[in-house]
Amino acid sequence: MIREEAQDTHKNPVPAVDFIIANENNSKILLVRRKNDPFKGMLSIPGGFINEGETAEDAMRREAKEETSLVLEPIAILGVYSDPRRDPRMHTLSVTFITRIVQGNEDARDDAAALQWVKIEDELDGLIQSKQIGFDHPKILNDYKRWLKSSRSSVDSSSCLTFWSTKKEQTDEAMQVKATE
Amino acid sequence: MIREEAQDTHKNPVPAVDFIIANENNSKILLVRRKNDPFKGMLSIPGGFINEGETAEDAMRREAKEETSLVLEPIAILGVYSDPRRDPRMHTLSVTFITRIVQGNEDARDDAAALQWVKIEDELDGLIQSKQIGFDHPKILNDYKRWLKSSRSSVDSSSCLTFWSTKKEQTDEAMQVKATE
Repeated sequence: MIREEAQDTHKNPVPAVDFIIANENNSKILLVRRKNDPFKGMLSIPGGFINEGETAEDAMRREAKEETSLVLEPIAILGVYSDPRRDPRMHTLSVTFITRIVQGNEDARDDAAALQWVKIEDELDGLIQSKQIGFDHPKILNDYKRWLKSSRSSVDSSSCLTFWSTKKEQTDEAMQVKATE
Repeated sequence: MIREEAQDTHKNPVPAVDFIIANENNSKILLVRRKNDPFKGMLSIPGGFINEGETAEDAMRREAKEETSLVLEPIAILGVYSDPRRDPRMHTLSVTFITRIVQGNEDARDDAAALQWVKIEDELDGLIQSKQIGFDHPKILNDYKRWLKSSRSSVDSSSCLTFWSTKKEQTDEAMQVKATE
């Protein structure tokens, strides 16, 4: 471990959280209409940076409050996205949670110009194809659709897939490499 | 999103990777006998920091080569561990991968004094209880045991649990909150 490198500044990606907020029957997800650059005016998954001294899950709860007024709890980690090109400002690493709404009603705040419920089946693909979604969030949202499909097809309630930036789209093969082998 | 905070140094946790290396039938995992502080002489899961410009999965592959001479590929993300107290030197955030060995034979290098295959069923609990494992790796290893159990009990090959620092031990209830509801 080259632990020394971490002591020097700007040598590590900046960790952030993004969080998928779905409605009760998982037919819609809540996206943010961005007030500021980058991707000003476009849609994104809500999220923000993790501060020193707080856990990723606490950063998620704080940012959810700040951006949407909602109280969220994590259900699962969808993936970790760390492609150096995913954010035009700097190299960021996103821990992406799948969450459930515990309390509150959505209300746009902070750098969210507006919040928008998007239908996963009918609307999301169109928004992605017309390039209305910023960052690498089209990839994250496609991964979430696969996660949803996987969790719906499984008999036990603990199923999930996990994803990362360079994971191949054809993951069925990779998924065969399993603990049960 | 308080994006500005990320520009200031030392305001964010330092991202790192840890990686679970199991043998073919998942009866043993490979731990590192630490050459240097912290936890010098103790065992830990292999890992290291993520450099700016590389993905988490590339950092995993690089550190695996550097510490163990093994070529690894990620199978899944076990969890993200970001308790500010998990590393005595600084606030770190670990993306913990479950991996498979693609190539090579284990050979201790870098700051690994030695590598040690530990039997998951017979040895691991004893090492944890006698406090021979550093960082928050006892928690990570216990989570991995739960992941293994979950993946073995599932009919489809895509099952996995995901974990984070503050996730409650009694996750059965949390796991009921599912996409299928």
